[in-house]
Amino acid sequence: MRLSCLQENLSKGLAIVGRAAASRSTLPITSNVLVATDEGRLKLSATNLEIAVSCWIGAKIEEEGATTVPAKLLTEFIGSLPNDKIEMALSAKKILTMKCARFEARMTGVDARDFPPIPRVENGVAVKVDVAEFKKGVARVVFAAATDESRPVLTGIDALFEGSVLTLAAADGFRLAVYKMPLAEAASQKVKAIIPAKTLSEVSRLLSDGDESIGITVDTQKSQILFKLKNVELVSQLLQGAFPQYSQIIPQSHTTRAVVETPAFLMAARTAQIFARDGGGIVRLIMTPGGGKTPGRLSITARSEEIGEDQAELDAAVSGEEAKIAFNGKYLLDVLGVISEGQVALEVTGPSSPGVIRPVGTDNYVHVVMPMFVQW
Amino acid sequence: MRLSCLQENLSKGLAIVGRAAASRSTLPITSNVLVATDEGRLKLSATNLEIAVSCWIGAKIEEEGATTVPAKLLTEFIGSLPNDKIEMALSAKKILTMKCARFEARMTGVDARDFPPIPRVENGVAVKVDVAEFKKGVARVVFAAATDESRPVLTGIDALFEGSVLTLAAADGFRLAVYKMPLAEAASQKVKAIIPAKTLSEVSRLLSDGDESIGITVDTQKSQILFKLKNVELVSQLLQGAFPQYSQIIPQSHTTRAVVETPAFLMAARTAQIFARDGGGIVRLIMTPGGGKTPGRLSITARSEEIGEDQAELDAAVSGEEAKIAFNGKYLLDVLGVISEGQVALEVTGPSSPGVIRPVGTDNYVHVVMPMFVQW
Repeated sequence: MRLSCLQENLSKGLAIVGRAAASRSTLPITSNVLVATDEGRLKLSATNLEIAVSCWIGAKIEEEGATTVPAKLLTEFIGSLPNDKIEMALSAKKILTMKCARFEARMTGVDARDFPPIPRVENGVAVKVDVAEFKKGVARVVFAAATDESRPVLTGIDALFEGSVLTLAAADGFRLAVYKMPLAEAASQKVKAIIPAKTLSEVSRLLSDGDESIGITVDTQKSQILFKLKNVELVSQLLQGAFPQYSQIIPQSHTTRAVVETPAFLMAARTAQIFARDGGGIVRLIMTPGGGKTPGRLSITARSEEIGEDQAELDAAVSGEEAKIAFNGKYLLDVLGVISEGQVALEVTGPSSPGVIRPVGTDNYVHVVMPMFVQW
Repeated sequence: MRLSCLQENLSKGLAIVGRAAASRSTLPITSNVLVATDEGRLKLSATNLEIAVSCWIGAKIEEEGATTVPAKLLTEFIGSLPNDKIEMALSAKKILTMKCARFEARMTGVDARDFPPIPRVENGVAVKVDVAEFKKGVARVVFAAATDESRPVLTGIDALFEGSVLTLAAADGFRLAVYKMPLAEAASQKVKAIIPAKTLSEVSRLLSDGDESIGITVDTQKSQILFKLKNVELVSQLLQGAFPQYSQIIPQSHTTRAVVETPAFLMAARTAQIFARDGGGIVRLIMTPGGGKTPGRLSITARSEEIGEDQAELDAAVSGEEAKIAFNGKYLLDVLGVISEGQVALEVTGPSSPGVIRPVGTDNYVHVVMPMFVQW
């Protein structure tokens, strides 16, 4: 292998694939990055056996070849170089030599044939999604997935591709988030998959300003999913198992509905959480309908025996009867944090039924939170 | 106590004093902040018994008084409020009530009389230093102080106030940094003190754009030092003991001197350190004088058996004979990082004598590094 490329491009490419390399693994080669010539370009690949990321960058190839070197070391070394031309050459003794300006380094490579094969997803249902929609949808569900592995299926996001709609859902036993996004290219057939939450976060992170849409191919037979960006491909294993039938968890009616400004609600939730943290996480919400010239109110309180208590009041358009509900402050903060703007509606049916939070003016997102049982 | 102040001012004040509060302490009240009226202003104080920081902010005092509440809680709560007027009132039952917009919180206070007294430094040698000089000087010595407590005196910075010069020195057994700065107001008598490195870092952090000079008062009898900024005072204990006689450690001559551009040297040191980290930290430097039309060279190399090796070359004005020396890569990075610009001179007298690094064009800073013994 002998080639040259620009430091800037190589450094960007390594930053993209580097995170997929395993940091501690029983298979040491997975902490390496594959550096290979590929049809006139330089291909970089890394995998932790769950996710594999490949990236292609422009290069002047003089001699074909491939090797693998430690991902972290190569990334740091290339990152420390000046923005100049880098010349790479692989010797017969598997030494990768790199020259850039007046720097020269040699690294001992491990044979590319020992590198785990990067899975290819060629058959399956293929769709396209707008990048902005994808990022928004992932942000609104991914935090609700479980982080502990006691029920592995809950660490994934349930994805239903049907016609021109992709529905993402996440649940961790205490809350449920469901987001529907339009597909720029519809699915030829209905397909369901459980995508690891980590995979979606990583794809979201990889999306850059240069990407307009993202291609997704689901191969349910091989249980793999491919995300295709400009010059970047990510292949991930899908999770096996049955995701809970979540539609029956979403309350179909409510007795009280309060509409408030999201930023004000978020600020009050943040303040309450400071006190709630030391008091079991309990944040109490009381919705009081207005009457005559008095506006309706949403009151948010938190108390810790040791340190004190906090109360905030917001103007709210409250329909239905007066109602109370208590949530874990962190869950409230999480969902208000991702909605962040506009108005939000809180719908409840009494203090022991799940509460529903949804942005006002759109029906593409619904978030259900289990209440906490508290003494009122 | 009853008063009102602006959220912005209170939040800034708490950020200033909050870091001095103890996080885990056998004396729980030291994790509180003292909130007290003081001659028409509001005084905030916190101490971990080594450092005490006080800050005064503007307030409308309606009733004098004082209390203490948990520093972290108060800081976070005030920080989460909108930028509006805050009303504070202390009840007979020691409950501190705070109202701001439509937020209201109550915290249980602990009696201000139980708060450790903030030491006063009224007698001693008083000087003034320009803020920019002070920050630069502290940055250039503080990293060379020891971080482990095996020789407590080395965790401090040796400060010599003499006439119109303040000399700061730090040493950890492997390196020595000495910086001389002019005093804006000279010392009435010669005084020596060992200031904890943490204290100087904290003072440097507290300096804001509003400060032009900083007043320093050393009370060697009470073994305390006072730093006086605009609206902020920091009092620290001094360290006891004898600081090493460092002037005899600074080599008075050299056989080889190489002058290079600091940014290029820093970049090469950073690249070398990536390889050196896994190879015992060894970075090798070779200085080769130029001849005829060939410029002199400084070569920087690092090697790790497992991962490979790296070499960089810099143009250098080398006087004297060819020379070699090996340093711990971290020490080299540290000193080049704080000099960061202009040109730097490296002076050596053979591979087993201390090397000297100093910025070119000024004689106010000298840095001595012990070499590593390596096979060449």
